Amino acid sequence: MSIPCTIVGFGAVGKLLYRIVNERKLPVDTPRVFARTARTESLDGQEIAVETLSEDAFPAGGVALFAGSEGVGSVSEVWGRKAAERGCVVIDNSSTFRMDPDVPLVVPEVNADALTADTKLIANPNCSTTQMVVAIAPIHRAAGIERIVVSTYQSTSGAGGYAADIMREEARSALAGEAGKHPESPFAKQIAFNCVPLIGDPDATGYTSEERKMIYETRKILGDDSIAVAPTTVRVSVEVGHAETVNLQLRKPLTAQQARELLAQAPGVMLVDDPANPAASPTPLDSAGRDEVFVGRVRQDTSVANGLDLWVVADNLRKGAATNAVQIAEVLFEKGYLGA
Amino acid sequence: MSIPCTIVGFGAVGKLLYRIVNERKLPVDTPRVFARTARTESLDGQEIAVETLSEDAFPAGGVALFAGSEGVGSVSEVWGRKAAERGCVVIDNSSTFRMDPDVPLVVPEVNADALTADTKLIANPNCSTTQMVVAIAPIHRAAGIERIVVSTYQSTSGAGGYAADIMREEARSALAGEAGKHPESPFAKQIAFNCVPLIGDPDATGYTSEERKMIYETRKILGDDSIAVAPTTVRVSVEVGHAETVNLQLRKPLTAQQARELLAQAPGVMLVDDPANPAASPTPLDSAGRDEVFVGRVRQDTSVANGLDLWVVADNLRKGAATNAVQIAEVLFEKGYLGA
Repeated sequence: MSIPCTIVGFGAVGKLLYRIVNERKLPVDTPRVFARTARTESLDGQEIAVETLSEDAFPAGGVALFAGSEGVGSVSEVWGRKAAERGCVVIDNSSTFRMDPDVPLVVPEVNADALTADTKLIANPNCSTTQMVVAIAPIHRAAGIERIVVSTYQSTSGAGGYAADIMREEARSALAGEAGKHPESPFAKQIAFNCVPLIGDPDATGYTSEERKMIYETRKILGDDSIAVAPTTVRVSVEVGHAETVNLQLRKPLTAQQARELLAQAPGVMLVDDPANPAASPTPLDSAGRDEVFVGRVRQDTSVANGLDLWVVADNLRKGAATNAVQIAEVLFEKGYLGA
Repeated sequence: MSIPCTIVGFGAVGKLLYRIVNERKLPVDTPRVFARTARTESLDGQEIAVETLSEDAFPAGGVALFAGSEGVGSVSEVWGRKAAERGCVVIDNSSTFRMDPDVPLVVPEVNADALTADTKLIANPNCSTTQMVVAIAPIHRAAGIERIVVSTYQSTSGAGGYAADIMREEARSALAGEAGKHPESPFAKQIAFNCVPLIGDPDATGYTSEERKMIYETRKILGDDSIAVAPTTVRVSVEVGHAETVNLQLRKPLTAQQARELLAQAPGVMLVDDPANPAASPTPLDSAGRDEVFVGRVRQDTSVANGLDLWVVADNLRKGAATNAVQIAEVLFEKGYLGA
């Protein structure tokens, strides 16, 4: 049985949600698209009507995929609970509800069991967290993670589709000898051919909002508040695809070879770690347009007891946002919580 | 008293050596430049004769700055010891002699005391190591470093000046819609608008030669073989300037504020860490053309006892190579081991 489907927000992630709902043949009606202002958008050669958001957007028994921005007064804050109360299941990509103890925060390969028949509001995690937990969950189950030191190499599209355009404009100017920050850039400094070590706002501890998300969301998804996380999040000159160096300290011994065997079988993971061909190690460009989380450079870290190093790469707009949201809906269908 | 000065190799680092010898007014004669093949090169509007390398290049009482490549049969291997034996002090930028227990490996701000009146051959460390030890040495002296987890964001010029040109060519093609790896690229995959997690060759442990340099050179320069180092080295889409996330586990407590106070006074360090202005955090572009090591994002890492996070940025061709070599010569002059 096909059910109504609503997409809220039609920026880079909203458009990708529309595409992936079709790609993955989610059993829903053609999505209706809503945003703050009505307009017509063109996507893959199709004209799509974007309607003004109202209560009509959230029919009972339907599913709504929210791709709006976050913060006070955001579409998620204003409409998220209202839609769920009307009986429309909401999968929200913003950070609004992620740390709410009553709202499951779900990566299907890791904690699909957090979804129940009563779930009406589900949070989709931060992009950097999602790809990391897909890679480390099987290792956590086998050997227990005590501590994670993670550094990110995050693409500009994580700040919105326009941000990747701005990087390209900066790059064109820089190649023509006119370096400098684009006046409309959301980044602290020129991002083209540079690295900017600041994503989100720092609090009194110096950790940014992006780094705090990686600490608290990881614990919630893995269901273990004792996991220590030390993140540094950095924006790099890449269009799509986030990369991460992930250094793990485990509770029990696990060799690099055992970790490789776990990762080779892990759902959602594409292990690319052939010692005979290290040049094949995955990169952000390899991940763009793909739904898998790529893992490479699996190494025993002998600097500490039970240390392990991973390199983790994924398309931040797909697995980091839209694909994961659609996968959550797929689980709801499979379990009979949607469409039954 | 001015002494003879020889520069061996005239690529990106060799040219910068020539410039910095002048900039810093090293008390030497106009450098004579040698390479495998004789030619005339133009630098800063000056015509410079490059002579074919021979024993004449290394007069007793002179100083020779080697900027050649490394490996078996390299100029450093063939000529390094020979020049030193002739009484010409050699400062070598390759990895050839770095781990030789009889050859001091020197970063002047950190271990100038490794130089003695008898020193004739000195190794200049790897770029990634140099900038890290300048930043962490004052912290090591105050609180002792037990373990370092470091991830690098290394610029393309680290692979040679032509490699930065190749990145620009790849970027131009990618912006014109023609992505792909340049046929003459030294990198494993397209580097423009990408991150490639492989610098040097991996051994059986999976660690690359670049990563092993960071482990062993750090211990040698800080004079403490008990320091544990877990590095992951990554090439990014940047022309000049390496960045590093440095996570430290200290032997004794040190607050982020105490670390900032140490770094504010540390020689060679430019602390850029104003909590009121996090957008000022240093980037590779800020470091290009500068001799200082920039440190920002100093944070207490509460995921472990006595944890501390730093973000460290420097011009890999200057402080990472040419500037450090000239600074070593300056120390030799100051101590009276050269020119006396």
